[in-house]
Amino acid sequence: MKLQRIFPCLEWARTYDRPTLTSDLVAAAIVTIMLIPQSLAYALLAGLPAEVGLYASILPLVAYTLFGSSRTLAVGPVAVVSLMTAAAVGNLALQGTAESLAAAVALAFLSGVILILMGILRLGMLANFLSHPVISGFITASGIIIAASQLKHLLGVNTGGHNLYEIVVNLTAAIDQANLTTLVIGVSATVFLFWVRKQLKPLLTRVGVKAGLADILTKAGPVFAVVITTLATWSGGLQDAGVKVVGHIPQGLPGLSLPSFNPDLWEQLFISALLISVVGFVESVSVAQTLAAKRRQRISPDQELIGLGSANIASSLSGGFPVTGGFSRSVVNFDAGAETPAAGAFTAVGIAIATLLLTPMLFFLPKATLAATIIVAVLSLVDLGALKRTWDYSRSDFAAMLATLLLTLIEGVEIGIIAGVGLSILLHLYRTSKPHSAIVGRVPGTEHFRNIDRHQVETDESLLTLRVDESLYFANARYLEDLVYDLVARNPSVKHLILMCPAVNLIDASALESLEAINQRLLDSGVCLHLSEVKGPVMDQLKRSHFLNDLSGQVYLSQFEAWNEIRQSNQSCQPNTEVA
Amino acid sequence: MKLQRIFPCLEWARTYDRPTLTSDLVAAAIVTIMLIPQSLAYALLAGLPAEVGLYASILPLVAYTLFGSSRTLAVGPVAVVSLMTAAAVGNLALQGTAESLAAAVALAFLSGVILILMGILRLGMLANFLSHPVISGFITASGIIIAASQLKHLLGVNTGGHNLYEIVVNLTAAIDQANLTTLVIGVSATVFLFWVRKQLKPLLTRVGVKAGLADILTKAGPVFAVVITTLATWSGGLQDAGVKVVGHIPQGLPGLSLPSFNPDLWEQLFISALLISVVGFVESVSVAQTLAAKRRQRISPDQELIGLGSANIASSLSGGFPVTGGFSRSVVNFDAGAETPAAGAFTAVGIAIATLLLTPMLFFLPKATLAATIIVAVLSLVDLGALKRTWDYSRSDFAAMLATLLLTLIEGVEIGIIAGVGLSILLHLYRTSKPHSAIVGRVPGTEHFRNIDRHQVETDESLLTLRVDESLYFANARYLEDLVYDLVARNPSVKHLILMCPAVNLIDASALESLEAINQRLLDSGVCLHLSEVKGPVMDQLKRSHFLNDLSGQVYLSQFEAWNEIRQSNQSCQPNTEVA
Repeated sequence: MKLQRIFPCLEWARTYDRPTLTSDLVAAAIVTIMLIPQSLAYALLAGLPAEVGLYASILPLVAYTLFGSSRTLAVGPVAVVSLMTAAAVGNLALQGTAESLAAAVALAFLSGVILILMGILRLGMLANFLSHPVISGFITASGIIIAASQLKHLLGVNTGGHNLYEIVVNLTAAIDQANLTTLVIGVSATVFLFWVRKQLKPLLTRVGVKAGLADILTKAGPVFAVVITTLATWSGGLQDAGVKVVGHIPQGLPGLSLPSFNPDLWEQLFISALLISVVGFVESVSVAQTLAAKRRQRISPDQELIGLGSANIASSLSGGFPVTGGFSRSVVNFDAGAETPAAGAFTAVGIAIATLLLTPMLFFLPKATLAATIIVAVLSLVDLGALKRTWDYSRSDFAAMLATLLLTLIEGVEIGIIAGVGLSILLHLYRTSKPHSAIVGRVPGTEHFRNIDRHQVETDESLLTLRVDESLYFANARYLEDLVYDLVARNPSVKHLILMCPAVNLIDASALESLEAINQRLLDSGVCLHLSEVKGPVMDQLKRSHFLNDLSGQVYLSQFEAWNEIRQSNQSCQPNTEVA
Repeated sequence: MKLQRIFPCLEWARTYDRPTLTSDLVAAAIVTIMLIPQSLAYALLAGLPAEVGLYASILPLVAYTLFGSSRTLAVGPVAVVSLMTAAAVGNLALQGTAESLAAAVALAFLSGVILILMGILRLGMLANFLSHPVISGFITASGIIIAASQLKHLLGVNTGGHNLYEIVVNLTAAIDQANLTTLVIGVSATVFLFWVRKQLKPLLTRVGVKAGLADILTKAGPVFAVVITTLATWSGGLQDAGVKVVGHIPQGLPGLSLPSFNPDLWEQLFISALLISVVGFVESVSVAQTLAAKRRQRISPDQELIGLGSANIASSLSGGFPVTGGFSRSVVNFDAGAETPAAGAFTAVGIAIATLLLTPMLFFLPKATLAATIIVAVLSLVDLGALKRTWDYSRSDFAAMLATLLLTLIEGVEIGIIAGVGLSILLHLYRTSKPHSAIVGRVPGTEHFRNIDRHQVETDESLLTLRVDESLYFANARYLEDLVYDLVARNPSVKHLILMCPAVNLIDASALESLEAINQRLLDSGVCLHLSEVKGPVMDQLKRSHFLNDLSGQVYLSQFEAWNEIRQSNQSCQPNTEVA
């Protein structure tokens, strides 16, 4: 049992049989076809040699098969994490490809260590800081930046930039150096891929192709584009016409080696690695959960951290860059019938074979084709409609989403996501800092107490009941004080104030001090403070403080009881005019 | 009315009469006596010439009289803000007193602008980020640092340091240069002042002195110490024996001038000014509220921001450093019978007269006496018992307090308070990220539903009710998902899940997406999702989204209604096995 906790694969391996093997092999074949061009393209997106994408698609998949908890997640290079890798490595101002690669490998290692530590320490909750609006704004902005960054390959020019502004400015400056042949290849490939994605499947179904086969043919679209443009470039000698190609890819599997231990580099990469880990984890766990729920399976978020962490360490050891579970490939894997993580290991075998055998054929693959693959893939990430939906639902969530989106576009991915997280925390604190509250009175003839502004209720001029609909904690503690002092100052005839607490889930030390101050100050001005309907856990905690001893009034189980007893006793608190 | 909103002084000025004048004059006289040595001492604590303390005690008080909303707050230099000023100016690595003074003046100006802007934009809620445990830890640590920093004056050595470690190390290294005469003066003054504080009043009362007079004599303790040690130094020629004295103080009122506009300096000081503003505001508003409540008066926190802001700008224009409302002086002012802020203006007149007439007499005032005044004053800020009380009440508040205290001692005031604020926010999010929840069942024969672990209740194996006792927002949205999937995976016979929401005060966009995911995934596995007892404002917001249209089940007003209707209808949701 303990061993199975460490290796979740032992659970499904015990009952592994031939039908499962067949399903997994079919799924692996389809995912492999999809992954070859994607892995090359995402490596280029990350600013690395194309073969690094292949390396990141072999051992990481095996590692996830051993340690991951999702049955159908497809791990490997993904667009957003590749963009974040490019940004992280770009921050370092390195010279040459070798240094960039070393930094990317170190980034994968650090990210793996961070994920595994988060898993062991059960810190998966750190991912909670990425609210949905922030992720949504971030992913949309990343999609736009990635698509824009690929335009240079369609134009055949050499430019750069880590945010939308830089990219657009540099592109505009370089546009007169555009290569027409490259442009034709790139635009054709893009149009073809969009057509495949939108039109091919319905067309094939109409001409009588079976749904399953039509699906596979559609998924193989990028492979067709790769094959056709590679052949055209090779046969037409288009390389001499200025079409940039992938070029020489070392044939053979990557060697294994530890990343160089460089404390300075690691320190510089730490924040980037943390962001990549958290963003990658959130993306991955969300698709894993969606797929698991469809088969009533469970994933364990903490085990996912360990699975993804080991995949990243495996990537680093084999010369790869940061990886995570990808949305589109996982859905394809699931739809193709993958039943266990073994499908991932078989995909790894497929990529390994491709790395051994196919790499010479990729020499004439135009970079413009890979750029087209990326553009078509990432534009599905762009969801501007989410802005409208979020605006309708909540203005403050909209603000967090828009700020993340704009800052990511303008300032880059790291500042964008950090600002988004900071802002969503601030907005949450702001929202709860002025909680909804109501003065309540008794609905005649009942034991119910409702808002005096909304209902016809009985009140008593010497007895005021305030219901606060929020936990009391530091962000609203002072607001509560202001509220109470204001109420008492405006109602000079009040002798008793009841704080009705059915919605108070927590009273922290700040709110406790505020309650103590309120109690003391109300006593000074001759008003008794009572509480009603305090929840069990909150009451347990209050009992560990001096507050209940010092309280000028009583704690009542129900508001009705408070109302009756206070009105019958008709006592008042003694004012205390000396300075405490 | 509008003019009165800007100048709250117009409210009390209209009914100002002779008895009020007398009360205010008496209070002002007492506060002046207390303020003279304090203002000199706090200027030295801030690393500035002694006269700057006097300058900061004239115009700022007049400005607060015009714009402040508290009747009895005594504004001027205070210990913690002076320490923070020293740290802020110390960060800049300036050369010489003139540059330090210019920086302190700029700091007061910036701090004034920040406070006024916060007041105009009604951003007083920013002060909420300083939770009580953080302030308490910060003030205690500041008190310890201040007391330790004054030991050098008692020893008569020249050392420095901005945190406890530096101070102690430097003191230890310099201890063999200690001046015995200075030590005798310093220790005698300290012992005398402690004796005055603890023993004098009971003694005087016992020998028949009236309580009021005894009080004034006690408050004048520091003045006695100043007079006696100054006379001793002057008559005994102790300056020649190595006793450091205040020395020449320019006679006359400060000139008015704008602080030099230096964008670099302002940028460097901005964070310090923000921290000083917020800490000063929190200290000040807390004492103002305590005193106002005793007379059933009200203060307006936003007006307080403007009052304190104008006081800081006034301080800056007259060559002073940052000021705020001080605790002990305000209490003295209140006890001495101050009725309106005019008492503050009279105190300003008192200090102005002292600046004009008394400064030559302060030449021989030993710095050791001022250090003794500070030590005795700040040790009352040190409240280590708060650690124990907070530990008993809440471990996470204790962690925030201890971290603030230790980091302030070790790393200095600015890092200490920033880390404390960050930590208390993180801890709050962590605490609400795993909210209390319960599976509930029906208490037989009633309409109540309670925790199945605590009560004997009826349940139904096809119907599960989960009550979550917290608002649903980004920090716990994913936890909710995990919780629900886990429940459903562990209870294969479940066909309906009811989320009971009486304690849910908010559902933000992240939680909404989680609910949508839960709804979809439960539907995929053939389980219907229902809600019950959703609050009005939360329901209003949900209506602005698509969630209610997509919801596989119903929203019920009461849990009992949900229980009855679902059990009677006995329908189940249709599973959806296709990928959405």
